[in-house]
Amino acid sequence: MRYLIEFSYDGSNFYGYQKQKDKRTVQQCLEASLTTLNRENKVLVSASGRTDAKVHALGQCAHFDMKYEVKDLKKALNSLLPEDIHIINVKEVQDNFHARFNVTKKEYHYKINIGEYNPTERNYVYQYNKDLDLESMKKALVYLEGEHNFKSFAKTDDNKENFIRTIYEAELSKDNNLVTIRFIGNGFLRYMVRNMVGTLIEIGEHKRTPEEILEILKKENRIYAGKTAKPEGLYLVKVTY
Amino acid sequence: MRYLIEFSYDGSNFYGYQKQKDKRTVQQCLEASLTTLNRENKVLVSASGRTDAKVHALGQCAHFDMKYEVKDLKKALNSLLPEDIHIINVKEVQDNFHARFNVTKKEYHYKINIGEYNPTERNYVYQYNKDLDLESMKKALVYLEGEHNFKSFAKTDDNKENFIRTIYEAELSKDNNLVTIRFIGNGFLRYMVRNMVGTLIEIGEHKRTPEEILEILKKENRIYAGKTAKPEGLYLVKVTY
Repeated sequence: MRYLIEFSYDGSNFYGYQKQKDKRTVQQCLEASLTTLNRENKVLVSASGRTDAKVHALGQCAHFDMKYEVKDLKKALNSLLPEDIHIINVKEVQDNFHARFNVTKKEYHYKINIGEYNPTERNYVYQYNKDLDLESMKKALVYLEGEHNFKSFAKTDDNKENFIRTIYEAELSKDNNLVTIRFIGNGFLRYMVRNMVGTLIEIGEHKRTPEEILEILKKENRIYAGKTAKPEGLYLVKVTY
Repeated sequence: MRYLIEFSYDGSNFYGYQKQKDKRTVQQCLEASLTTLNRENKVLVSASGRTDAKVHALGQCAHFDMKYEVKDLKKALNSLLPEDIHIINVKEVQDNFHARFNVTKKEYHYKINIGEYNPTERNYVYQYNKDLDLESMKKALVYLEGEHNFKSFAKTDDNKENFIRTIYEAELSKDNNLVTIRFIGNGFLRYMVRNMVGTLIEIGEHKRTPEEILEILKKENRIYAGKTAKPEGLYLVKVTY
């Protein structure tokens, strides 16, 4: 049986999603709990993609193969998992379903506090704590929408062959001092959201103009984009198949 | 010179506000940083009141006496304090000002998640994760407003002489799955907000009727009220002088 799980996690105390030797990662915790449920027969988990250290997920997805009563799996798994990972939903899928290759859309949110430093938010909202020109940032977001080669916004040493991605929606909203930037796309390169947000912040600081996004995209070289925004403001919100 | 500070803290990693031997508390951190700034001459801090372990503050207030340039104090103090305490504002006050005795109003919020468990909120919102009858809870809140003897909602072994307090506002609002209960009063007894919220939750579960609030108040005995709600959903939001 192949199962698809939807799950959330607090990235604060993980070295990211992906398994790494001797590090606490989300994948390692999931596989450990599933292997326990599978009577110590190793279960391997394939997610929609990795998330970096300290990045959160409200709707990450992954598939795995094992035999278990589908209606009991959510409860059994949640009782074994630590309190910073939570299974939201479990369903059976076809044997050829793949949590990474079958993705049609992904949604990420990035949260920024432009007001006074708030200690209760320090691991969940980027504490920028100064004003930003949100109108300029909104103009810049329009240039990011659509199909582009996003190599300038990818991790420097990313050796992918194809840096073409489509952003369907890129929007900014403000609620009191909380700014949320929302991206929906067919896929995102490693560091791509954080590099876009870092560049957008520089636009909000008037260090760059919104129009520079067009030039940066054209250069296809990481050195032209802005700094990588901090991980704690980033959330993988939804994966669509 | 007497200074009044407004400050916020994340209660998660503190054994409450008040100093305790060999425990990490907010008061101990504040006094240690102030004493450093005061060239190792001990500074004692008096807050508007204590908060319990894991309870947060967005606008706690305290006073202390020392000599320091008022315009530099916020920055100097924040550079010494740990990242889970933050000074929002510092001002000079008269020598007879007292952060506890001069309080005219206090505002507390209690946050409840009635949707799916969210790991990123686990230390900041009570994860109730089931539905509640919010209309019944709103009816009950009306009975809590006004001047009453709140002994039934106080800590069992509280030996105060006067349990009379006035609640000016008691309101419930809902934003998606986040329920916020807001109390403004002239003062609150120890555990009073958490005991009121615990009772309100039992009303939302139909284990009690809203009208039972009147009877509980009349009894003036802790055994008649509901359970003490968990600390992590509680925020001291504002102190008014």
